[in-house]
Amino acid sequence: MPAFPAPGPLNGIRVLDLTRILAGPFCSMVLADLGADVVKVEEPSGDQSRKTGPFAETDSGARYSTYFMSVNRGKRSIVIDLKHPEGRSVFLNLADTADVVLENFRPGVMDRLGVGYDVLKVRNPRVIMASVSGFGQTGPLASRAALDVIVQAMGGILSITGEPGGGPVRPGVSMGDITAALFTSIAVLAAVVERDRSGEGQRVDVSMLDCQAAILENPLMRYFALGEMPERLGTRHPVVNPVQAFRTADGYVAISASDGPAGHWGALCRAIERPGLLDDHRFDTSWGRTQHLDEMVPVIAEAMAGRTTTEWVSRLAEAGVPVGPVQDVAQVAADPQLRSRHMFAELEHPAVGPVTFVNTPIKMSRTQGGPRSVQPELGEHTDDVLGDLGLSAADIAALRRQGAVA
Amino acid sequence: MPAFPAPGPLNGIRVLDLTRILAGPFCSMVLADLGADVVKVEEPSGDQSRKTGPFAETDSGARYSTYFMSVNRGKRSIVIDLKHPEGRSVFLNLADTADVVLENFRPGVMDRLGVGYDVLKVRNPRVIMASVSGFGQTGPLASRAALDVIVQAMGGILSITGEPGGGPVRPGVSMGDITAALFTSIAVLAAVVERDRSGEGQRVDVSMLDCQAAILENPLMRYFALGEMPERLGTRHPVVNPVQAFRTADGYVAISASDGPAGHWGALCRAIERPGLLDDHRFDTSWGRTQHLDEMVPVIAEAMAGRTTTEWVSRLAEAGVPVGPVQDVAQVAADPQLRSRHMFAELEHPAVGPVTFVNTPIKMSRTQGGPRSVQPELGEHTDDVLGDLGLSAADIAALRRQGAVA
Repeated sequence: MPAFPAPGPLNGIRVLDLTRILAGPFCSMVLADLGADVVKVEEPSGDQSRKTGPFAETDSGARYSTYFMSVNRGKRSIVIDLKHPEGRSVFLNLADTADVVLENFRPGVMDRLGVGYDVLKVRNPRVIMASVSGFGQTGPLASRAALDVIVQAMGGILSITGEPGGGPVRPGVSMGDITAALFTSIAVLAAVVERDRSGEGQRVDVSMLDCQAAILENPLMRYFALGEMPERLGTRHPVVNPVQAFRTADGYVAISASDGPAGHWGALCRAIERPGLLDDHRFDTSWGRTQHLDEMVPVIAEAMAGRTTTEWVSRLAEAGVPVGPVQDVAQVAADPQLRSRHMFAELEHPAVGPVTFVNTPIKMSRTQGGPRSVQPELGEHTDDVLGDLGLSAADIAALRRQGAVA
Repeated sequence: MPAFPAPGPLNGIRVLDLTRILAGPFCSMVLADLGADVVKVEEPSGDQSRKTGPFAETDSGARYSTYFMSVNRGKRSIVIDLKHPEGRSVFLNLADTADVVLENFRPGVMDRLGVGYDVLKVRNPRVIMASVSGFGQTGPLASRAALDVIVQAMGGILSITGEPGGGPVRPGVSMGDITAALFTSIAVLAAVVERDRSGEGQRVDVSMLDCQAAILENPLMRYFALGEMPERLGTRHPVVNPVQAFRTADGYVAISASDGPAGHWGALCRAIERPGLLDDHRFDTSWGRTQHLDEMVPVIAEAMAGRTTTEWVSRLAEAGVPVGPVQDVAQVAADPQLRSRHMFAELEHPAVGPVTFVNTPIKMSRTQGGPRSVQPELGEHTDDVLGDLGLSAADIAALRRQGAVA
């Protein structure tokens, strides 16, 4: 597993990326880590997440958004005013060289700007245009804005996350955006695979809300098939038990012992010195234990409270029971397994100094990708990208004077 | 947006799928929905999730696991005993016809069975072998078993999900498995794109724990750059406010108003009839509001408690504020936007009757995929798959008698 990136499997694939904030940029970050040439097309005011705090400040007082930094590494930035006729023309020429155009405007904006799929495909039939939006390009809510918490709320995950009897809780990261980003990455790559065979691009339409339904697959299946309404369960798994976190003497530990007396379940009962659990045959199967949680959980909880997290992790791992500590972010950052897999990659930012990025979790034997450069300054690569398109320095200067690019 | 699937963009791509339970099967479900020919290779006892409750029961008393059902639609099942020399030989012949071999055994098991990547690639240099495991193929914990709750615990999301001051909470779906499934799908497709250019396959190694770090990108960036330790925040966003759910007269509603007085923030203050918030210039920016939550949140909360969720959704949507109800699973299942996007697809199971599946969230203009068949019976397609390989009925019968296939 090499620590530093090779060209990556998507070397040679060009993505023209009009997206802002999170769902789109997370998608193009995944593609950039895999080696795609991601050209981030920003409006003159820039991706608004450049202004989202908290900020890393430099000695000279410049402020860099950590939010923007985290998901825009490995991309090039060009500023184009799509409302300017010459800006639009530059964009269309760039789109002729693209494999993928990615956008997350509200539905209809690309068409109104004169850069919709109908225009792009006539000029470049091989182009794939992918849209990621809150509710998708169709349906009664298509024109409404949605953001992460809205789709997590409407998609049901808030209703099944939280303490028993408590209120809804939002998973601590923007799963509404991130899930859509991952599905859009899959969609784009599947369309490239197909395009490489058929010669034709197509339009891809991913809705953040649809993606929330997709990850709710199992609760929805139980509802449709059996009418079951899932509840908030703290850390517990709904149908496989014991699979949950328990409080220890100094923190929390997660365990998973979902098989029978001859397996993890038996090993757990012995390791926590509660062999009586094994004598109770209602507890022989995970399904049986799920029916008798009130009798089982307190016995395990009482035992777990008696030792520290470190003691339990080592004792249960020794006994062969799947186990892990509930780690805070500082512990994640120091985790030896993640470190050994090069999951934290340091790059030098010219103003901020060293910046640590979370590496790609996609490990490949022959074309390992990863973060290749820090986040771009606004318009940092305008000259480079337009130069590659064959424009002279004088042409570029003229476009800049007109306000078409910056 | 067609309701029924076309062949799908991955038509012609064959995936030999040795995975069990969730992370692997969710990945191969995504690929099957996109049109890949997924051949699920099961051991004689079958994927253990066939035995995971709750079950849909038929009139004749047969029991079908809803868990297995939900993520194994659109696949064919063949039973091969890989420990049997003839079974191994059948598997290798099948792998010669595969684009992708997907597995989630513990590291080393494929090699010990004599079907590791070193063996496969000599016979079929174009094959991509993707492994998805708890901790990955390398590192100090590589040989340890991990399951969803373990990697969610170790990866940090449990530590930042929950009520302020409360204990850790697990997001209500198996994000440890599902995130790894999505990253593995991306990895496999990127490797296919590269293979189509270079002619060479490769080994892909995805760790569920690595994927948890990848989705913690933003909290880890804030920790690395600024030393910030994120906390549990209920439904609130850490750095953009107000972005959270509020209790209404009869439920909860999520809102997102992260800009300034001229935008959603101003519209929100007017719609909730608290114009005083606009006069307080500490609240003019999202970052300012984040610094003064204790003054801002109670004012909004008090206003929101006075009307029902339905009233707030219509009133705030009218005012142009991003808004959505916190929906339970039954409401998700009935949601008009999801219904209009064909996100629930009904298929007829010969024994159970009609089964509703969550459709793929990947919508494509030319090659729309989707669930094409219900989950297979154990070994339902052994004859078909071996027949395609050129084996005669007598050959297959002989293999079955020896216990190599079933």
